[in-house]
Amino acid sequence: MDQQLYDFGMIGLGVMGRNFLLNVADDGFGALGTDINEESVSALNEEGKDMRVKGVATQQEFVQLLSKPRKIMLLVPAGSIVDKVIEGLLPLLDKDDIIIDGGNSHYEDTDRRYAYLKTKNIRFLGTGVSGGAKGARLGPSIMPGGDRSAWEDVKPILETVAAKVNGEPCVTYIGESSSGHYVKMVHNGIEYGLMQLIAEAYDILKRVGGMSNDDMSALFSKWNDGRLNSYLVEISANILKYRIEDTDEHLLDLILDKAKQKGTGKWTSQSAMDLGVPIPTIDAAVTMRAISAFKEYRQDNSKLYKDIHPEMPELTGPGFAESVEKALYFGFVTCYAQGMQLLAEASKEMKYDLDLEGIARIWRGGCIIRAEMLEKIRHAYGTREGLFNMMATEEFRHDLFDCRESVVELLHQANERGVPAMCLSTSLQYFEVFRSERLPLNMVQAQRDYFGSHTYERTDQTGVFHTAWDARSIHKAGDETDRTGPGEAATLKPSGGAKGQ
Amino acid sequence: MDQQLYDFGMIGLGVMGRNFLLNVADDGFGALGTDINEESVSALNEEGKDMRVKGVATQQEFVQLLSKPRKIMLLVPAGSIVDKVIEGLLPLLDKDDIIIDGGNSHYEDTDRRYAYLKTKNIRFLGTGVSGGAKGARLGPSIMPGGDRSAWEDVKPILETVAAKVNGEPCVTYIGESSSGHYVKMVHNGIEYGLMQLIAEAYDILKRVGGMSNDDMSALFSKWNDGRLNSYLVEISANILKYRIEDTDEHLLDLILDKAKQKGTGKWTSQSAMDLGVPIPTIDAAVTMRAISAFKEYRQDNSKLYKDIHPEMPELTGPGFAESVEKALYFGFVTCYAQGMQLLAEASKEMKYDLDLEGIARIWRGGCIIRAEMLEKIRHAYGTREGLFNMMATEEFRHDLFDCRESVVELLHQANERGVPAMCLSTSLQYFEVFRSERLPLNMVQAQRDYFGSHTYERTDQTGVFHTAWDARSIHKAGDETDRTGPGEAATLKPSGGAKGQ
Repeated sequence: MDQQLYDFGMIGLGVMGRNFLLNVADDGFGALGTDINEESVSALNEEGKDMRVKGVATQQEFVQLLSKPRKIMLLVPAGSIVDKVIEGLLPLLDKDDIIIDGGNSHYEDTDRRYAYLKTKNIRFLGTGVSGGAKGARLGPSIMPGGDRSAWEDVKPILETVAAKVNGEPCVTYIGESSSGHYVKMVHNGIEYGLMQLIAEAYDILKRVGGMSNDDMSALFSKWNDGRLNSYLVEISANILKYRIEDTDEHLLDLILDKAKQKGTGKWTSQSAMDLGVPIPTIDAAVTMRAISAFKEYRQDNSKLYKDIHPEMPELTGPGFAESVEKALYFGFVTCYAQGMQLLAEASKEMKYDLDLEGIARIWRGGCIIRAEMLEKIRHAYGTREGLFNMMATEEFRHDLFDCRESVVELLHQANERGVPAMCLSTSLQYFEVFRSERLPLNMVQAQRDYFGSHTYERTDQTGVFHTAWDARSIHKAGDETDRTGPGEAATLKPSGGAKGQ
Repeated sequence: MDQQLYDFGMIGLGVMGRNFLLNVADDGFGALGTDINEESVSALNEEGKDMRVKGVATQQEFVQLLSKPRKIMLLVPAGSIVDKVIEGLLPLLDKDDIIIDGGNSHYEDTDRRYAYLKTKNIRFLGTGVSGGAKGARLGPSIMPGGDRSAWEDVKPILETVAAKVNGEPCVTYIGESSSGHYVKMVHNGIEYGLMQLIAEAYDILKRVGGMSNDDMSALFSKWNDGRLNSYLVEISANILKYRIEDTDEHLLDLILDKAKQKGTGKWTSQSAMDLGVPIPTIDAAVTMRAISAFKEYRQDNSKLYKDIHPEMPELTGPGFAESVEKALYFGFVTCYAQGMQLLAEASKEMKYDLDLEGIARIWRGGCIIRAEMLEKIRHAYGTREGLFNMMATEEFRHDLFDCRESVVELLHQANERGVPAMCLSTSLQYFEVFRSERLPLNMVQAQRDYFGSHTYERTDQTGVFHTAWDARSIHKAGDETDRTGPGEAATLKPSGGAKGQ
């Protein structure tokens, strides 16, 4: 049996890697794996004993058993380990072999590796894989970017492995260089936002509405049958009803409220800031994870303020639940809108040439942020070239309009009761500022010009202006003839940029 | 006169550099400058003609005319120009000469330059300077970090040049390596937050309260006599009353509402995310600058939603103005609290060993964020070692408590009317989450464990747990004896970190 070479290789046989290989083998391909951990290799051989699956102990054997060009995926922890594995592989590989990094590598690392491996004649695909352990087994969403000819070679395998929605596989070639990992990073940023929004909806239902876990579970299940249909809402319903074995106690109530993170949400916010794209709901979700870690301080602090929770009546009834559904839907839409706008800008700035419709399409299945509304998002981007932001499209505008008042009222009810909702609140503000023709940032520009001579533009004429605000003189910046105003010793001209106030 | 050597040299004679030199000369030191721009050199010679000030055209002449060890400040645009100027200087300098980078360099660049110049036996001070052009002339706040012996040598000059508050100079040695520029960066981050909060207060007064610019100017002036006393509130009062010459028109109304940025606010948010410190008000201010740039989109979008601005009565009277003052004070306190917490964490993480009391002290005068409340901040940090966050101290807790309800009501009034207030809203949420013993992040951790086997902690027992949520089995992570739950084909164990959901 080993005489026949294997079609696809995996380095890193954690549960994700093993499951991905079993999935490959399900579809008739020969699947080969290796890992420095012997137990993982044995686990693969055990789990795949009735299939064309094999785990081997050494990279030498691994490389010899793969058909050429070799197709090797890495599912190892992001960071220096990826470089180490690549360096170990390189002497064993042949020209045009393919390395697929399936972990959550930072896109800048992927750019570096892509360029480096090109010099070694190895084709590289930085590839986002989403779906968790179960998704890897049953069909994940796959986001490969990098060498296009490598994509053509692995396409038959990845398309059969990927999740399907209406027969369409949840994988497509994303674009050049690091685009696959960038898109996966933004996927995770959106995921942070959606998860925090769900957490806030849960908190409001529980603390403003006084609902039980079981009632909330039923409500989430009901929502999952409607426009909020999504993997995260579905699993939240399951989490809410989960009882500790042989007891009536809900596990959720005993889980510590400190949320960890591995960095992809943070990277999304940091990159968005570099590109000048506002993604405040995602930023707020990253912030909430950080704040959750300060549990001891929060405990001490809550004692000092315990009397700010006035006894107020609980809100109940279908109207209340409906307004929470509206708020959650509103939050979800703003969150996807932020992620999609970031992708549009990254596509331009980093020359990824992304197909946003295609990305929405492959996110409809397999991945953690899969949701019914991605069909509408796909339509919004598929029918409008260069769409700036999806909030104002026909697909979403009316729903947002319809939800807005509920969000305003619900936030007020929560705020009055001292129940925070950082992401929901930010989503409302995001919507409001994006529909504001006029923002008070004229004041900010005036201040910047006042203290730092940073100049400003005007609404009534073109040009760049500076005012000696203390001195009653206005002039166009760069106009050397009018440098001093009366009463002002030193001229306040643009300082050449040394001061970045 | 030129026979006598000069005490202090400046490279970069924009208005900041010239003003700083004139300030040095005011205090009896000999002040020498150079610039590649001849006009700037002439301007310095003209402005300083009655003082011990001289501008020269070449770096050779400049270096020869400085007493040793030479004290040379750079006020040139941040970035590669700083490296270029340093490279040009190096062959002309002697051992132990001092270079002071007074621009807004990124702290990582400062770390690199500090280490590099050490190998060249040149002492380097990465130095934040705040106060704008006027502050440079009359007394800025100065934040030098790096070589401590260099600080001792320049201390007599910088202490006389700096602003004074109750006789105390607004300069102190900040700490090792890049600490000076880091502290200045956080100063600017706080500045972004305060400016946006003022802009939102202005917007609420105008659009919710219908106040005129002149009435708002008077109100800001009145606030400036109280606990909101600060440079930014003071200049806002001046900006609000400023009329275009020979007209009755207010300049502020004609300033375009697109605010620019030079990056220090963004760097603050990015660094805070790396350190895991929540600074959401500052993040929101960075976001608002980005959103302000999308003016054309906002205009189009506002037409689609124009009917969401219901006709609601204007709020007027002293009660309304008072609640805006409370909201602005509340926002200011949260914004300083975020910046100070970031400094505390950076001090530990980067081994800066910062004296937070000293930093609050030198921010009381000269700089853009100078404010009366910095005296209270100084006290809060001066009397409590290792203070985690200043919000809960006696100095601020009662005021925040007292303001909170006004913030809640004012935000609701603004939200109802479609008047956004992103930073104020975020400040309220920040306060609320920091006083929440329990946050709904248990749901986030449950979700992470559900889809990614990322494990969770419990409130009722120690350890790290994982649940096969679909399968009715709970076990301690790493417990190999209980790997599969009934009904679940694949075990959901921690995946080894390849997936960073």
